[in-house]
Amino acid sequence: MASAERVTAAVLIIGDEILSGRTQDVNLNAIAKFLAAHGVDLAEARVVPDVHEEIVAAVNALRARYDYLFTTGGIGPTHDDITADGVAAAFGVALHEHPEIMAMLHARWGEDVNAARRRMARVPEGGVLVKNPVQGPPGFQIGNVFVLAGVPQIMRGMLEDIGWRLKGGAVVISRNVRVEGAGEGVIAEPLERVAKANPDLSLGSYPFYTADGYGSNLVIRGRDAAVVEAVVEELVASLKAAGIERVFIPDERAA
Amino acid sequence: MASAERVTAAVLIIGDEILSGRTQDVNLNAIAKFLAAHGVDLAEARVVPDVHEEIVAAVNALRARYDYLFTTGGIGPTHDDITADGVAAAFGVALHEHPEIMAMLHARWGEDVNAARRRMARVPEGGVLVKNPVQGPPGFQIGNVFVLAGVPQIMRGMLEDIGWRLKGGAVVISRNVRVEGAGEGVIAEPLERVAKANPDLSLGSYPFYTADGYGSNLVIRGRDAAVVEAVVEELVASLKAAGIERVFIPDERAA
Repeated sequence: MASAERVTAAVLIIGDEILSGRTQDVNLNAIAKFLAAHGVDLAEARVVPDVHEEIVAAVNALRARYDYLFTTGGIGPTHDDITADGVAAAFGVALHEHPEIMAMLHARWGEDVNAARRRMARVPEGGVLVKNPVQGPPGFQIGNVFVLAGVPQIMRGMLEDIGWRLKGGAVVISRNVRVEGAGEGVIAEPLERVAKANPDLSLGSYPFYTADGYGSNLVIRGRDAAVVEAVVEELVASLKAAGIERVFIPDERAA
Repeated sequence: MASAERVTAAVLIIGDEILSGRTQDVNLNAIAKFLAAHGVDLAEARVVPDVHEEIVAAVNALRARYDYLFTTGGIGPTHDDITADGVAAAFGVALHEHPEIMAMLHARWGEDVNAARRRMARVPEGGVLVKNPVQGPPGFQIGNVFVLAGVPQIMRGMLEDIGWRLKGGAVVISRNVRVEGAGEGVIAEPLERVAKANPDLSLGSYPFYTADGYGSNLVIRGRDAAVVEAVVEELVASLKAAGIERVFIPDERAA
């Protein structure tokens, strides 16, 4: 699916705790922002439970379809940490104890490298490490798949060792026009008119609801800053011509 | 996949704004908690962009595999609100303007029911409405698929009109044992021993990292309260026997 213009990625969140509602995921949003800054389009995300067959199927579906796949969760030492097994099975390779991780474990724990800690050294054959700058074992990369921790602070730290490995596309520029006190029922027509006149850009409407009634954040996305800026002006004029008064360009100036 | 014991569901989040990193999703967690309270296991979640073919493929994959599917997002009046089209295509039925929604729109807007507002009345043939107690158009149900708003406050309101429609399984009881000042490297062995001795329960370890070092929340889940309670006691004893001192049962008492 790669092209000269568009580089794509998917995220696979592995963990019963997300599906049970126990934990609010924040890793997807962090990876999405990281990828946007690198010019990579996040095209899909999935959440699967700690079940081997589900992990294998999702890894294979997503790594085949997109340029990159990022997984989070399931790389610790406990019996429910089965991500490395799933990724190895998806690639059809064996797991081995990575010598660099074993050396780290011995440096830290000496003789206390028990069976649980050794689990953290298991990496699929052919995998290379992703540094963990916080504490604990590294993640790894195999092919186009990056296998990262689930703890958000550690996951974000690992991203620092990934940016340089990505071929990025053109970075998407995003601008926001905020409408207050008017619902999408009146916004839709001027918005669609501008969208149709500019088919190379993405224009979206993200409504919100407050005690003050409905409003919406209109988002204009494209890869050419001058074009995006011109369309922002065109949209503001179009909204005002439709009788909408409270139109703002947040953090910059009232339109 | 339904059985007398387990009722399953999936969530499909539809929206470019989640994948671009602009918006932090909170609907998955709200639906997960809602389903857990109704005895329904959330088995998978996906996030797809505002692209017709992606929506159709995901709706069909997930509604076939699980007892229920919940979608969020894309049911407003703007040109990028294409969820109803995708769900109708997935079911192979046409869209029509639902007479109850048209009546609501006329009651609210009189002659001002423009083309954009009429878009909000589009429901697949055979769909029944899901009440929106906040403001704006209702959601709908077709077959085993519930189509809900993306604005979190409205999405949560719509769940109030769904619980009575679900056949629930036995509600899962979840208990938490918190370990501080010890990493999974020492927790893993006693945890796995208790997990293997109780194969009918789910035992998970969800590590965290603070300035104080690693710790973990151990979660014991099952459908029989007495059994879950006994395993909590067994796990606490097992952790203490392994030399772990700071073991707590949060919100209840120190273990």
